[in-house]
Amino acid sequence: MIVGDEGDYVVRAGSVLLRQVSIGGRIVDIAIGDDGTIAAIGEGIGAEYKGDAEFIVEGKQDIAIPGLVNTHTHAAMALFRGYADDLPLHEWLTSKIWPLEALLTGDDVYHGTRLACLEMIRSGTVAFNDMYFFMKDAARAVTEMGMKAVLAYGFIDLFDEERREREIRATEEFCRWIGSLRNPSIRAAVGPHAVYTVSTEAMKWLADFAKREGIIVHVHLSETEREVAECEKMYGRRPAFVLDECGLLTERTTAAHCCWLDQQECNLLGKRGVHVSYNPVSNMKLAVGRAIPYQWLKEAGANVTLGTDGAASNNNLDLMEGMKFAALLQKFFWNSQTILPAHDTLAMATSSGARALGFGDGRLMAGSPADIVLVDRYAVCNTPLHHLESNLVYSCTGGSVKTLICSGKVLMQDRVVFDERKIIEDAAKAAQRLLDRLGEQVIQEH
Amino acid sequence: MIVGDEGDYVVRAGSVLLRQVSIGGRIVDIAIGDDGTIAAIGEGIGAEYKGDAEFIVEGKQDIAIPGLVNTHTHAAMALFRGYADDLPLHEWLTSKIWPLEALLTGDDVYHGTRLACLEMIRSGTVAFNDMYFFMKDAARAVTEMGMKAVLAYGFIDLFDEERREREIRATEEFCRWIGSLRNPSIRAAVGPHAVYTVSTEAMKWLADFAKREGIIVHVHLSETEREVAECEKMYGRRPAFVLDECGLLTERTTAAHCCWLDQQECNLLGKRGVHVSYNPVSNMKLAVGRAIPYQWLKEAGANVTLGTDGAASNNNLDLMEGMKFAALLQKFFWNSQTILPAHDTLAMATSSGARALGFGDGRLMAGSPADIVLVDRYAVCNTPLHHLESNLVYSCTGGSVKTLICSGKVLMQDRVVFDERKIIEDAAKAAQRLLDRLGEQVIQEH
Repeated sequence: MIVGDEGDYVVRAGSVLLRQVSIGGRIVDIAIGDDGTIAAIGEGIGAEYKGDAEFIVEGKQDIAIPGLVNTHTHAAMALFRGYADDLPLHEWLTSKIWPLEALLTGDDVYHGTRLACLEMIRSGTVAFNDMYFFMKDAARAVTEMGMKAVLAYGFIDLFDEERREREIRATEEFCRWIGSLRNPSIRAAVGPHAVYTVSTEAMKWLADFAKREGIIVHVHLSETEREVAECEKMYGRRPAFVLDECGLLTERTTAAHCCWLDQQECNLLGKRGVHVSYNPVSNMKLAVGRAIPYQWLKEAGANVTLGTDGAASNNNLDLMEGMKFAALLQKFFWNSQTILPAHDTLAMATSSGARALGFGDGRLMAGSPADIVLVDRYAVCNTPLHHLESNLVYSCTGGSVKTLICSGKVLMQDRVVFDERKIIEDAAKAAQRLLDRLGEQVIQEH
Repeated sequence: MIVGDEGDYVVRAGSVLLRQVSIGGRIVDIAIGDDGTIAAIGEGIGAEYKGDAEFIVEGKQDIAIPGLVNTHTHAAMALFRGYADDLPLHEWLTSKIWPLEALLTGDDVYHGTRLACLEMIRSGTVAFNDMYFFMKDAARAVTEMGMKAVLAYGFIDLFDEERREREIRATEEFCRWIGSLRNPSIRAAVGPHAVYTVSTEAMKWLADFAKREGIIVHVHLSETEREVAECEKMYGRRPAFVLDECGLLTERTTAAHCCWLDQQECNLLGKRGVHVSYNPVSNMKLAVGRAIPYQWLKEAGANVTLGTDGAASNNNLDLMEGMKFAALLQKFFWNSQTILPAHDTLAMATSSGARALGFGDGRLMAGSPADIVLVDRYAVCNTPLHHLESNLVYSCTGGSVKTLICSGKVLMQDRVVFDERKIIEDAAKAAQRLLDRLGEQVIQEH
């Protein structure tokens, strides 16, 4: 099946044969079946599968790694990239981000999410965990772009009962709609924003609903010191314990940020089998003051994964860059040259993330989803090739990704993505229309 | 004059016309004279200069910025990229880096420096400040690659008189040789390694020699807390004061790292007109525990510039990535969302660096050296274009650089660099030969 077919067309699905790629220093072929999983990997298997393959991709000895998984973002915020930087957090939110978000339309979210998907594809990401608004429009964008995503409607009741009822209905409606798509690449999650914006009544309802539906929980947890202090004041205990009492800490839960967890909270997350999304770039940019206690989380058995956060606080969605920030911030903050080595960082961004979102195991082996990234073997960042994982984590950025395959579909080949220029132009126009509406509103108010 | 001429040839010199580039939102042309300086910038001047131009580069509305300047690196260490990561500092140095450095040849430095130049060109850097060994070979590589550099032989006497005499002769000989080249793009500097590796006698000699010759001083200063403590124990005062007593703090001095300066030392650096090279990636990776006191240095009037350090502790030479680390590390460590905004970060990596190395003013204006980088206007990282400086610092990496012009020579056009594949292959081979020699030595020793 050919999904798109234009001059620079690249979205392809069907059986694919990837020839002559490098895995662990060996040159192998990878055969991908019609069902989007890896049929076989090995030296010389190309000959056997050549006849079955609708498409043959020449790997040219490029390095094959599992596709990266971004476990925390607000994709459509790509439209806000660079709109407001270098401001105090409160001013940034109240005078810049919120006024713009109040004017967002479903169309904006559609174009912003397409832009975000394009960016993620170009930097090696196959799947992501999203929390925002107008999520049906986000789902449409993800489907068209061929990626995989877990989508949550950001639930915020601000402790108001009427608003809570509306948010509950919105959550139910969205999750059922996603279920009705029967698209294994797009999954619904519940998205309780955080303990400081969502009532315990709502959190309990969301926990029950997620359990009943068997879906993922996506929540912000302990990003800033202030929110921990306010939580202790309000509830008499730290945020992770509040979430736990509401039933939100489960094996289906991804908790984003987690910068200010204490050791007891880390143990609790480990015990509950929670997945943590570490967002080093955002944490540094917003000056949250602390890096996640990776060592405690690891010792407690929590699954630590990697996220970019939204483009308003990053300002890109390049998880290859994110890996470097992840490893270096741990070393710097926790005063250790050896903490979070390259091997573990790469696993964090691949297999750990895939496990958190339930998109397979993030490994290249027969039977696994064919989520494969080819990294340029002859790029400067891979020269010399003393240690592949070091190069991938510390030296390369997203620009070294040449080809990306998601669920067996070739979404980028030799750095060409189908319809790229149009996606960029449409997003730029959507951003401009949004600013125009803001301008009109300012004029009306004066 | 055509410097190279092959299939993928790009090194060009002579009068160049850059058409339709974007500066500050305006679409202009840039005319470059035979002398390598900008002859004129303006709307529609292309028509006037077209007849004079030997080469016309179509800017396609891409964004023109001044070339980046890397004020601290050990270029040839590109051969060590990924060779030894995630190790304790002492083990990293003694069991990995030093044994390999002991086997280095001039040929290795030549190939490593070419690789480093290629990497810098591809990520927007036109000039750099280098300290290493076999510096004549480094000079040859820089000349061939068409870049600009300040080159220092790394002076280390370990407080030994005999060694000091040898180092003095090596420094004199190298500086005179560079002078004899009469190449304005390649300058000599003296390179006292640091207060913990160089005697005060030697530092005084180097200060005098540099003053007499009117050349730059390139020195490491206060990278780790330990070296400050040891200096206080040895000399009874902090490192900046020791350097100052030896006459090494001047307007020609670039001091690298400066993480552990106290406020008095910052004031001293400001008073002496010293240039500081901030190396955020290296500082984080080696877990030095503190970010440079940027605010104090700025208030004291010191010129803060940006460096990558060598590829063994970075592991790339991408100063576009370095800008993001620079701004974010300041925000995170000094607990401020507003410190080191994008505008100042870009200036740090361009005009401040150019001033430190004496390569013009790092601005795009008539009369300035034609050191120009074109950044892809239609890359995802520049979409939307709410704020150009934010996009350049926080969103783009080196991969968004399309074209680079250094002293009027087109070193990269549309991401093609002359002879790139050969530079990469030669460097990979040199790295392999180095490892082979290490292997032979290990066998002989057992």
